[in-house]
Amino acid sequence: MPNISKKGVAMPLSPIRKLVPYAEKAKKEGVKVFHLNIGQPDIKTPKIALNAIKNSNLDVLKYSRSEGSETYRRKLSQYYRRNDIEIDADNIIITTGGSEALLFTFGSIMDLGDEVIIPEPFYANYNGFSIAQGVTVIPILSEIDSNFSLPSISNFEALITPKTKAILICNPGNPTGYLYSKDEIRELAILVKKHDLFLIADEVYREFTYDGLEHFSIMQQEGIESNAIIIDSVSKRYSMCGARIGCIVTRNKSVLNTALKFAQARLSPPTYGLIASEAALETPTNYFNEVINEYVKRRNILVEELNKIDGVIVAIPNGAFYCIAELPVSDTDDFAQWMLEKFRLNNQTIMVAPAAGFYSTKGLGKNQVRIAYVLNKEDLKTSVAILKAAITEYNSQC
Amino acid sequence: MPNISKKGVAMPLSPIRKLVPYAEKAKKEGVKVFHLNIGQPDIKTPKIALNAIKNSNLDVLKYSRSEGSETYRRKLSQYYRRNDIEIDADNIIITTGGSEALLFTFGSIMDLGDEVIIPEPFYANYNGFSIAQGVTVIPILSEIDSNFSLPSISNFEALITPKTKAILICNPGNPTGYLYSKDEIRELAILVKKHDLFLIADEVYREFTYDGLEHFSIMQQEGIESNAIIIDSVSKRYSMCGARIGCIVTRNKSVLNTALKFAQARLSPPTYGLIASEAALETPTNYFNEVINEYVKRRNILVEELNKIDGVIVAIPNGAFYCIAELPVSDTDDFAQWMLEKFRLNNQTIMVAPAAGFYSTKGLGKNQVRIAYVLNKEDLKTSVAILKAAITEYNSQC
Repeated sequence: MPNISKKGVAMPLSPIRKLVPYAEKAKKEGVKVFHLNIGQPDIKTPKIALNAIKNSNLDVLKYSRSEGSETYRRKLSQYYRRNDIEIDADNIIITTGGSEALLFTFGSIMDLGDEVIIPEPFYANYNGFSIAQGVTVIPILSEIDSNFSLPSISNFEALITPKTKAILICNPGNPTGYLYSKDEIRELAILVKKHDLFLIADEVYREFTYDGLEHFSIMQQEGIESNAIIIDSVSKRYSMCGARIGCIVTRNKSVLNTALKFAQARLSPPTYGLIASEAALETPTNYFNEVINEYVKRRNILVEELNKIDGVIVAIPNGAFYCIAELPVSDTDDFAQWMLEKFRLNNQTIMVAPAAGFYSTKGLGKNQVRIAYVLNKEDLKTSVAILKAAITEYNSQC
Repeated sequence: MPNISKKGVAMPLSPIRKLVPYAEKAKKEGVKVFHLNIGQPDIKTPKIALNAIKNSNLDVLKYSRSEGSETYRRKLSQYYRRNDIEIDADNIIITTGGSEALLFTFGSIMDLGDEVIIPEPFYANYNGFSIAQGVTVIPILSEIDSNFSLPSISNFEALITPKTKAILICNPGNPTGYLYSKDEIRELAILVKKHDLFLIADEVYREFTYDGLEHFSIMQQEGIESNAIIIDSVSKRYSMCGARIGCIVTRNKSVLNTALKFAQARLSPPTYGLIASEAALETPTNYFNEVINEYVKRRNILVEELNKIDGVIVAIPNGAFYCIAELPVSDTDDFAQWMLEKFRLNNQTIMVAPAAGFYSTKGLGKNQVRIAYVLNKEDLKTSVAILKAAITEYNSQC
């Protein structure tokens, strides 16, 4: 039998995937499982986007343009301008989700063995994309005590080698919920200019900022026109993860021309997703106001309730819809599985994402979990009550 | 300014792309351009698929499962069974088009520097995917005189090295239109077993076979259960290229488990495309009969008309909807551009795909073009008349 590839062996399994069979077993036994583990919002997709699909009148479901239609990219550039990001349609390449935007970006700027520095904990699939591309992730630790703020620039500099090609941040962060400040972005800008690196920012949670804080994009930072590359997506913005539409935004023409070659090889992004995404740009502002209000309430309840549990430390999230919590247990992989397999409160349990999968450094994050507040407020309260009772019972058994 | 990657530089431009500006200029001048260059069929998408989308009733456009839903994969396995390919839902991973199926397959079985042998001329994007993955394409020449039949097995064996991991065929072929016989598939099976290689078959044109010939899939060939991997897609079958739904089909569990890790990293295929694809499986048989009849008529007209031109040699296609024609010109890149820029017959011209882009070996295919017969019969006739007049005028100028 012919062998599979070394990188295929090295590709990580999703940190949640191994828990899925336990969750399914629990459900089969009639147990209600609250999913705090996923990034699939329960928020409704704007009607205007769904209606555009229902009213579409195609005879032939054709390829779209490899880089996305001129019309959509022009309207999208206007969306960015409304967000004080001054770019043109030509600065955008439409991709199949943020995932493909990252894939094309990595492919366009890095060869085998090149290095990308990423503050950890980070979105687990950055690992998968890196391995698939033969790129080495160099993690730099951000800490729960500072809500996972930007590590110091001197710590970054200590990690830069001749192989370093880029720094990748997620802002606001999955899994941390941290929103980088204008100052932090400026510091990063000086750093990448000094060392001639790319600065990649995954800004798919741009709209989800709380407490009056405003998102500051790397594209608003002057002086890094050749360095800055945004990864973006409609998935979270309009709660339409299934559209699979994202984009690369950059002022660097070499990157755009190169990414276009990758885009041409895969022909086109999904046509229906494009129709929905173009229509979604007309979503009324009050949609976002309502969504943000809802998330703030959820976050407040979550943080408040978690803080009531002895030994739990929560990083306060100012953005996105995740938080990292440190639990008084030694191995959250085991604990998460145990809750699904063994623990029930009124025939209910919860599924959380063990945080070790969000760290690249072995051994880190073992007492942390990522909690997505994508459930309604009542369910969130119940979920934290379950967590509290589970911690007590789990620790009493040891 | 930070540099882009070496592989980004090496990524090929689409062989047609450089002609696009000339076609656009001609159109702006009011010239009618017939597109013989593209694989986008004009055939209507089955109503049942489009209606499934119009009738969809989603509140939230969610991620689908990374490997595709159980339901769709089960129905798809029944489609394969109807085509005498005995596989289960578990043997299928749904992908974002055939493009992603190939990407995941290459990633799952090949590392940097590994080699894949491909009969040339071949689908130009195989080059792009190979470069993106750091894989080396080893071309093996198939010839117009035999309609691009399988090169001899001894020619294959001469190219096999310790780095060879796979043989890739496209059956029926783009750009050749050649349909491999049962005997040719059996010969390949013996070869891959002997040398412990994967056999990848891009079978996206499975339905498009003519003259009473039947498609014989590599999955129907016994003895290569661990070697055979099908790349498939709904794009051509149902004329829904924009759905971006394809799949990997294999009985090799290691390949499936590995490809799933790549699939998880990119989250999910497009949800609307899945809805359309699942519905399309109920397309009535007479849809295909009509489509095949139409293509046979087009092919017959095309071949008949091309054969009337002095110095033109056509490979008779038994499948897909392309043919390669050798023209009495020395450089079809120049000729194709000249037709768009300078040549008009009744204010009309044609766009063809120069064939050099379908060869990996430099210098080959320079007097050949690929013609896609995706236009109606009248337009095809007109197009060949334009070609004939263009050849005469082009050669009279030299």
